[in-house]
Amino acid sequence: MITIIAKHIIQEDKTTAFRSLAEELIVETHKETGCIEYSLFEDIDHKNILTFIEEWESKEAIEKHFNSNHFTRIVPQMKALLSTSPEINLYKEVI
Amino acid sequence: MITIIAKHIIQEDKTTAFRSLAEELIVETHKETGCIEYSLFEDIDHKNILTFIEEWESKEAIEKHFNSNHFTRIVPQMKALLSTSPEINLYKEVI
Repeated sequence: MITIIAKHIIQEDKTTAFRSLAEELIVETHKETGCIEYSLFEDIDHKNILTFIEEWESKEAIEKHFNSNHFTRIVPQMKALLSTSPEINLYKEVI
Repeated sequence: MITIIAKHIIQEDKTTAFRSLAEELIVETHKETGCIEYSLFEDIDHKNILTFIEEWESKEAIEKHFNSNHFTRIVPQMKALLSTSPEINLYKEVI
């Protein structure tokens, strides 16, 4: 099981556009094999910090996700709305 | 419901000490009212990145946690092992 935390800092006036794209991405990603959890979280104090918390069955499933039509179509549009590079970490639970 | 992502970058030779303190903190925190989830995750590619993923019932429960004996005793010891300030975000799920 692999957990991904993907943190995005969005340009102040672009959060609505980002959330709309994220919603589309989430709907498509939930259909993928190996996707256990894939949700978007908003920072309570900074509405322009939006973070995906994801859970995947395997690295193979994540690779397929990164190469999927919806990912390669939607993610570049999301990246154009950021104020800085996204911060993405892949984790395994240890305690 | 509030989700906390607390990311720590640890000095390369201090990860074992950090994990030992984290284990103690996790055992005590699991006993707290309002704590739904509280686990430690290791970055797959960087063993010195260790991140708590937490779920809490309310802000009040988090406040109590921050003021608990175990938190105020253990967390300063963990902070001394970091190579940079921890990165802590409080989130609500939006999609």
